[in-house]
Amino acid sequence: MERAFRSPSVSGMAHFDLPLPQLREYRSATGEPDGFGDFWTRTLDEARAAAEPVRLTEVATPLRAITTYDVTFTGFAGQPIKAWLNVPAGAPGPLPVAVEFIGYGGGRGLPIDWLAWNAAGYAHLVMDTRGQGGGWRGGDTPDRDADGAGPAAPGYLTRGVRSPETAYYRRLFTDAARAVETAAELPGVDATRLVTTGKSQGGALSIAAAGLVPDRVRAVIAGVPFLCDIRRAVTISDSFPFQEIVEFLRANPDRAARTFATLDHFDVVHLARRVTAPALLSTALMDEVCPPSGVFAAYNELNGPKQIEVYEWDGHDGGKSHFDVKALEFAAAHL
Amino acid sequence: MERAFRSPSVSGMAHFDLPLPQLREYRSATGEPDGFGDFWTRTLDEARAAAEPVRLTEVATPLRAITTYDVTFTGFAGQPIKAWLNVPAGAPGPLPVAVEFIGYGGGRGLPIDWLAWNAAGYAHLVMDTRGQGGGWRGGDTPDRDADGAGPAAPGYLTRGVRSPETAYYRRLFTDAARAVETAAELPGVDATRLVTTGKSQGGALSIAAAGLVPDRVRAVIAGVPFLCDIRRAVTISDSFPFQEIVEFLRANPDRAARTFATLDHFDVVHLARRVTAPALLSTALMDEVCPPSGVFAAYNELNGPKQIEVYEWDGHDGGKSHFDVKALEFAAAHL
Amino acid sequence: MERAFRSPSVSGMAHFDLPLPQLREYRSATGEPDGFGDFWTRTLDEARAAAEPVRLTEVATPLRAITTYDVTFTGFAGQPIKAWLNVPAGAPGPLPVAVEFIGYGGGRGLPIDWLAWNAAGYAHLVMDTRGQGGGWRGGDTPDRDADGAGPAAPGYLTRGVRSPETAYYRRLFTDAARAVETAAELPGVDATRLVTTGKSQGGALSIAAAGLVPDRVRAVIAGVPFLCDIRRAVTISDSFPFQEIVEFLRANPDRAARTFATLDHFDVVHLARRVTAPALLSTALMDEVCPPSGVFAAYNELNGPKQIEVYEWDGHDGGKSHFDVKALEFAAAHL
Amino acid sequence: MERAFRSPSVSGMAHFDLPLPQLREYRSATGEPDGFGDFWTRTLDEARAAAEPVRLTEVATPLRAITTYDVTFTGFAGQPIKAWLNVPAGAPGPLPVAVEFIGYGGGRGLPIDWLAWNAAGYAHLVMDTRGQGGGWRGGDTPDRDADGAGPAAPGYLTRGVRSPETAYYRRLFTDAARAVETAAELPGVDATRLVTTGKSQGGALSIAAAGLVPDRVRAVIAGVPFLCDIRRAVTISDSFPFQEIVEFLRANPDRAARTFATLDHFDVVHLARRVTAPALLSTALMDEVCPPSGVFAAYNELNGPKQIEVYEWDGHDGGKSHFDVKALEFAAAHL
Amino acid sequence: MERAFRSPSVSGMAHFDLPLPQLREYRSATGEPDGFGDFWTRTLDEARAAAEPVRLTEVATPLRAITTYDVTFTGFAGQPIKAWLNVPAGAPGPLPVAVEFIGYGGGRGLPIDWLAWNAAGYAHLVMDTRGQGGGWRGGDTPDRDADGAGPAAPGYLTRGVRSPETAYYRRLFTDAARAVETAAELPGVDATRLVTTGKSQGGALSIAAAGLVPDRVRAVIAGVPFLCDIRRAVTISDSFPFQEIVEFLRANPDRAARTFATLDHFDVVHLARRVTAPALLSTALMDEVCPPSGVFAAYNELNGPKQIEVYEWDGHDGGKSHFDVKALEFAAAHL
Amino acid sequence: MERAFRSPSVSGMAHFDLPLPQLREYRSATGEPDGFGDFWTRTLDEARAAAEPVRLTEVATPLRAITTYDVTFTGFAGQPIKAWLNVPAGAPGPLPVAVEFIGYGGGRGLPIDWLAWNAAGYAHLVMDTRGQGGGWRGGDTPDRDADGAGPAAPGYLTRGVRSPETAYYRRLFTDAARAVETAAELPGVDATRLVTTGKSQGGALSIAAAGLVPDRVRAVIAGVPFLCDIRRAVTISDSFPFQEIVEFLRANPDRAARTFATLDHFDVVHLARRVTAPALLSTALMDEVCPPSGVFAAYNELNGPKQIEVYEWDGHDGGKSHFDVKALEFAAAHL
Repeated sequence: MERAFRSPSVSGMAHFDLPLPQLREYRSATGEPDGFGDFWTRTLDEARAAAEPVRLTEVATPLRAITTYDVTFTGFAGQPIKAWLNVPAGAPGPLPVAVEFIGYGGGRGLPIDWLAWNAAGYAHLVMDTRGQGGGWRGGDTPDRDADGAGPAAPGYLTRGVRSPETAYYRRLFTDAARAVETAAELPGVDATRLVTTGKSQGGALSIAAAGLVPDRVRAVIAGVPFLCDIRRAVTISDSFPFQEIVEFLRANPDRAARTFATLDHFDVVHLARRVTAPALLSTALMDEVCPPSGVFAAYNELNGPKQIEVYEWDGHDGGKSHFDVKALEFAAAHL
Repeated sequence: MERAFRSPSVSGMAHFDLPLPQLREYRSATGEPDGFGDFWTRTLDEARAAAEPVRLTEVATPLRAITTYDVTFTGFAGQPIKAWLNVPAGAPGPLPVAVEFIGYGGGRGLPIDWLAWNAAGYAHLVMDTRGQGGGWRGGDTPDRDADGAGPAAPGYLTRGVRSPETAYYRRLFTDAARAVETAAELPGVDATRLVTTGKSQGGALSIAAAGLVPDRVRAVIAGVPFLCDIRRAVTISDSFPFQEIVEFLRANPDRAARTFATLDHFDVVHLARRVTAPALLSTALMDEVCPPSGVFAAYNELNGPKQIEVYEWDGHDGGKSHFDVKALEFAAAHL
Repeated sequence: MERAFRSPSVSGMAHFDLPLPQLREYRSATGEPDGFGDFWTRTLDEARAAAEPVRLTEVATPLRAITTYDVTFTGFAGQPIKAWLNVPAGAPGPLPVAVEFIGYGGGRGLPIDWLAWNAAGYAHLVMDTRGQGGGWRGGDTPDRDADGAGPAAPGYLTRGVRSPETAYYRRLFTDAARAVETAAELPGVDATRLVTTGKSQGGALSIAAAGLVPDRVRAVIAGVPFLCDIRRAVTISDSFPFQEIVEFLRANPDRAARTFATLDHFDVVHLARRVTAPALLSTALMDEVCPPSGVFAAYNELNGPKQIEVYEWDGHDGGKSHFDVKALEFAAAHL
Repeated sequence: MERAFRSPSVSGMAHFDLPLPQLREYRSATGEPDGFGDFWTRTLDEARAAAEPVRLTEVATPLRAITTYDVTFTGFAGQPIKAWLNVPAGAPGPLPVAVEFIGYGGGRGLPIDWLAWNAAGYAHLVMDTRGQGGGWRGGDTPDRDADGAGPAAPGYLTRGVRSPETAYYRRLFTDAARAVETAAELPGVDATRLVTTGKSQGGALSIAAAGLVPDRVRAVIAGVPFLCDIRRAVTISDSFPFQEIVEFLRANPDRAARTFATLDHFDVVHLARRVTAPALLSTALMDEVCPPSGVFAAYNELNGPKQIEVYEWDGHDGGKSHFDVKALEFAAAHL
Repeated sequence: MERAFRSPSVSGMAHFDLPLPQLREYRSATGEPDGFGDFWTRTLDEARAAAEPVRLTEVATPLRAITTYDVTFTGFAGQPIKAWLNVPAGAPGPLPVAVEFIGYGGGRGLPIDWLAWNAAGYAHLVMDTRGQGGGWRGGDTPDRDADGAGPAAPGYLTRGVRSPETAYYRRLFTDAARAVETAAELPGVDATRLVTTGKSQGGALSIAAAGLVPDRVRAVIAGVPFLCDIRRAVTISDSFPFQEIVEFLRANPDRAARTFATLDHFDVVHLARRVTAPALLSTALMDEVCPPSGVFAAYNELNGPKQIEVYEWDGHDGGKSHFDVKALEFAAAHL
Repeated sequence: MERAFRSPSVSGMAHFDLPLPQLREYRSATGEPDGFGDFWTRTLDEARAAAEPVRLTEVATPLRAITTYDVTFTGFAGQPIKAWLNVPAGAPGPLPVAVEFIGYGGGRGLPIDWLAWNAAGYAHLVMDTRGQGGGWRGGDTPDRDADGAGPAAPGYLTRGVRSPETAYYRRLFTDAARAVETAAELPGVDATRLVTTGKSQGGALSIAAAGLVPDRVRAVIAGVPFLCDIRRAVTISDSFPFQEIVEFLRANPDRAARTFATLDHFDVVHLARRVTAPALLSTALMDEVCPPSGVFAAYNELNGPKQIEVYEWDGHDGGKSHFDVKALEFAAAHL
């Protein structure tokens, strides 16, 4: 089924970032924060220590070609995280598995929202995004945060930003790593054929998970990934969600240094450096939501085989389903 | 004392049309044009007289659960029209079939764009939209118009609007009726279990086709249908595409009467009156693209069993995939 | 000091709500929810049971005419809430006291932001708004919510909206009532001369606190109050924050009934009915953020002496400092 | 008569293109397509082979100082094209003649729209624009295209863009060349004193016609010409009509190379190179519709005497009637 | 010559005012201010007492069919006012004369801006607008105001609005009446064949002058006239210039009554009542700058033969040159 | 697969001017106009020659901590200028004094609008801005201009811009210098402890006054000052008020050289060079109203001790009350 109509008044955004040849060489000027590796090792260890067994409940839908499960696994600090697991009905296993993460503001929605990987023969685990799902597609997972996160701009970028420990994205990145670990242990799944995938925030999580649990991931697909080279993005993008940082710092100018020091821990550039699996990324030269220099900053750190699709004329919906076809082809080639 | 509030932005569109109880009773004030039935009978007869056999070519995709055919059938005046036919791979037939029409400005895109009806066990014929497909999803079918259509506002609403005979929508409505006739004759399809479906312009075509070839259609699904109660819509909507009419009449004020007389032939309200199949419609109370009074004006003319989903808080994307689930359930109940 | 510049391109919003004579008679169509009184009694009792003594720490500022204290008192469930207490330096007590609440998205900011009530001879307690303060003026109070609130639209209106117990505004309204109780017990304050005051969300809290602890409040001042007649506001306003509800229901259409049932517990109309103190309200006929029908719906329920300033030509900044002068005069007349 | 009112909220667009000294030296990086000369020679030959005699019908208007004729001449492939011919009433001939082309989206409108060249003593032939005239000023000439042009973005830039042969602008450029040839043969006209003129799309046609039939044109006037250095314009302009290309390529990303290869045939830069007549151009440094680098790219190729008016503070209406005066003075000096 | 390009993104404004049948009956609710007649009699008498002889200086232009004079006549309080006088070159007199007034913000511009009335055989006096001419077309007449007008919103509506005596429009209306008296005495002019004309502010002045010096005016043409039924317009229009009043009253809420009492003296409705000459008006149902109810409020007061063109689909440019043709035909029929 | 992200809105303005290191070195390319010093000496001498004694009238307010006087002093050419004088009630003098100037479009408003300097122990003279005060905060001072200023864009930048002698800002700058001279002579004031202060236009006046009467000013505080490096600002800012110049030159392209020659006399850069008092400035890197390069152009000319607060994430409200605290601390350190 389809989107009903596109407003003809939506216009573009000229090539506002660096010229393409410079983009291809671009590296972030921001270094890895001290203790970065320890921070994540400790965080993941705590999540694993608190982990509980995954629960699957079959769900009825009008989609007879797909068997759907409502999944609950444990993410950050052992907190319960929802997901959908869609499996081609009656397919003989073990199946390769795609672990998908979602764009900013959306939740896992309905099982019918997730059809392509099944149609291509994969088991498909779609992780819900904690706290999100009230913006444009429904969700079911609360963001538990017993301490209280303190003032933040509406949205998630500055939630808990007073320290890496309390930051929202610490919890979400950990959920993503745990989703990969969970997917690898699902019945009927071939754990050696696991791909992470997603767009925008989902693309960021796709890279982040592959950097956090690199031995679990066989391929990475990240469309127009968010959270790359954050310090630069904030100075060249007028769009949300990066504008949340601007909004927060306007209200709280004295917190700028601390805010960026926290955000450095969730800059995908630093986790891209830990990725060794084959990776497919995309970027769009008119994308002011996730500027292309950030995507290249992450891409240029990847340590495995890699490929990038550059959409010269697109904004943040870079490539649309043309990229989805590339993604399935890339996965077929590497799994 | 302080500034009271900072507006982070404005979106949405309050309940701008009639209150819901009045909508439920609303009837269009525009009568059926003289010779309306003859006009369509003659047009369809000519199309059938010029018809040629459908051609199907299998297409490779990364979607192993689906067999895809590139379809060419003949529409208005025997002109070739493209479509995708997606069939569940290896499914034992005959299968029920969904004939889908596309929203304004888009073309048939890629096979991967059309997964839900297959996942639900249907053969799925997706008709390309002549001339469209340059706006937000690609297309492959030219709009042949040997006479030349004369000046028009950019878009399709006023293309050829100097007479019903030359109007663009005469051609497109005929293509839609012919798509239904084509689908009914496809191999492996159960012609007695055919549903038309679509959103916005696709919804309009879904109703129109069911009104033009009522004996072929077993169920009709039309999300937020376009082209309903056109004369009123133009006075209450500021949005495109209805604004194309306004734009055209601003440039050509002397052509108003003739323009509306032409458009009356493509007002879905008059074809809804010929629909006897069970029908599911949707409308959204904040939809200024296809105002709810128009949708109810069409709904209230339907002559078969009928159901309408009212999304109180949505705009033109009324219901999104929540409606898609309703659609599949409705089809399962009636086919 | 002053706001630097107003963009001349900001335009108005014609008189979009009911005509003024009808506004003066307007009553909300939404009834008080079952168990409303018990809900609040229980909530306040729990907060009082968990209360701890207020803490005051003097703070240095360049304002020699004012003595400022950084205040921590306990609000909902005994959770710590920050405030500023500004007292005219060297003034002989006991002083009348103004308890001020803040507009949507802002925090308590800096002591210099709060000068007028001191200049008029009052002690001035400015309550920080939990979780807010990242939007346009900084804050210092986290929103503690151990359960996790579940998906919500960015902002606060739909945070925890799955039930009255978990809703964000349950916590904030309770904080406001507790701020009044705290102010009444401050040293140097004349507890019999207490006025609540605020604009927009601050106006809502000003009424709510006066309805929750009516025997503590001697006068109520609420400029363009928010959260009035919510069910209607959502259908006539295109502006944030009411649009957050629309956004949330678009993503989660199945949760509409539950959402409104929750919000009814925080509709100021029902607490206005419990206010017996003299009250001064304002509304602006071009205010689409807090539509005038809502303000009148609350005003018409007030049970004490009352006065309303109607700004015919203003938007949501209705009256600006002209209203501030009215507010100080009203307080002087009633305290 | 006059335009009634200018919205004060229309603001500018800072100097967004190259600095003026660099503009003065700027050359396009796009080379002339292979076979460019042959393409146009063949196209014009075919049009001439199919040509039929011009028809003139006198039209009554309230303008007693002007004699108006409704003109039909043959353009591309011998297709009929409308025009107005306004001649100073009772003027002794032969008269110099101005051939005017129209901006994007507009048609020839009414005879009263075309007064200045008559007032200056010229016969004035105003060519209607095929298919256009539904956007902001009415037209009367259909765009005949028997093959069907295939999907295109709304508008004309991408109509038929699958090849130079089928492209809309092939037909329109040919019409323009034929309009010049027609004007030269009109009774009462001094064929040795012919000027082409127009703004925006009209300016592009004014240069194009002078490049296509250079021996017929004695002077060229092109205000803010469109279609110059198209490949660059698309990367620096966010405005329509260049955005139509972006829109088309977003829907059809696989067609980018073919699209630009087609458009190269209609890049005015390559026809400017063939112009030897004296030429007056204008550009505006805040014109994002037709960026100044494109105008200079064309200007710097002109091979005759030339002059350019640079409006530093204007957008796309560069110079308005100040430029019109320059144009009449330039024509008087060179004819 | 022509306007170069119309932005396709300009959209409409649905039928927002009363339905057409109610418009046809609509009367303003605002009564004529006390002393209205005396006010204007006194003002005109003072202007005449201070009047000096008109001065004409011939000006060279490239328009050989027109003889242009730079005119200086005396308006309000004998202050010098500029105008253009365009006369058909070599035409035998005496000629009928059109006195034209200009839309808000513009000045007399260049002689080339004023061609239609000459082409139709009239002498044409175009009055410059004091102080205006810095907004969208240049001007040459200062607004002398020795007292100083006091604070005002940017623009002219609230300039000097503290009293009718000091209001800007007192001076401008008087200039307009004096322009008519001046035109009637020009050499070569037939004073019995004088028409006032203009659009928007120019339409307001066209009616106002005809109401102030009714015995001098033989026909009145007013396109989409401004300044009609001001008190209502301010509550239904969000557009400039009426928003200037809103802006002024937001800054100065205590001056509302005095401001409207002043503006009543310049509400065209009251001067329309004094018009006995045949009149042609226009209105557009999507014109939010000069809402149609105001135009009908003035139209319904006219006391001579009258005609109104209603453009159902236009905004403030109602009818464009289609109306200009109507205007010339109307003048030809009545002069 | 899914739609990647829904943009909730766009705000902000990325770092659009020079990078910060270049800003710190930036110097204006515009030289001081010939006769600049004489122009101002003569103007001030005339104002002093026409000066009359200041008048003070006590005004009642609800602010018991403050004694307010309505002040009338003589500014340019001896014309009366209003001001508020707020003095801490009952404070023992002599007091240091702050002379404050107001942002563009606003007037002195109400005494309650001016509290901070009193709270910090200063006498506070707030100069009304002639002619302004109709835009966003009320005013009481007319702009007397007996000659009539000629056409201008709405607003003040181009009022009287035909020569330095007639320009609006000549009068306003002179008023500001006279306000300083007036403040120094007020009873109870310590003339050796005088600070000028203001934001935007108020910041420009704060620097200008200190440059015009340098021996009177002990400290200068200018937040985001306007009118700096005007020739460059017009080419990089799309915002009002600088857009007024663009608007004026669009209507009057022949007046560009004269307009800039006039404005050079009011470019704060040239008066900054005459400032020797300690100065505190602020700028914001996202401020498109008063671009940071202009602020640095002025800052880099200052000849006394100086300090600049750079707000990296703010627009034109740079720093808000955070800067106000800096300002009071700076004043305390230097007076």
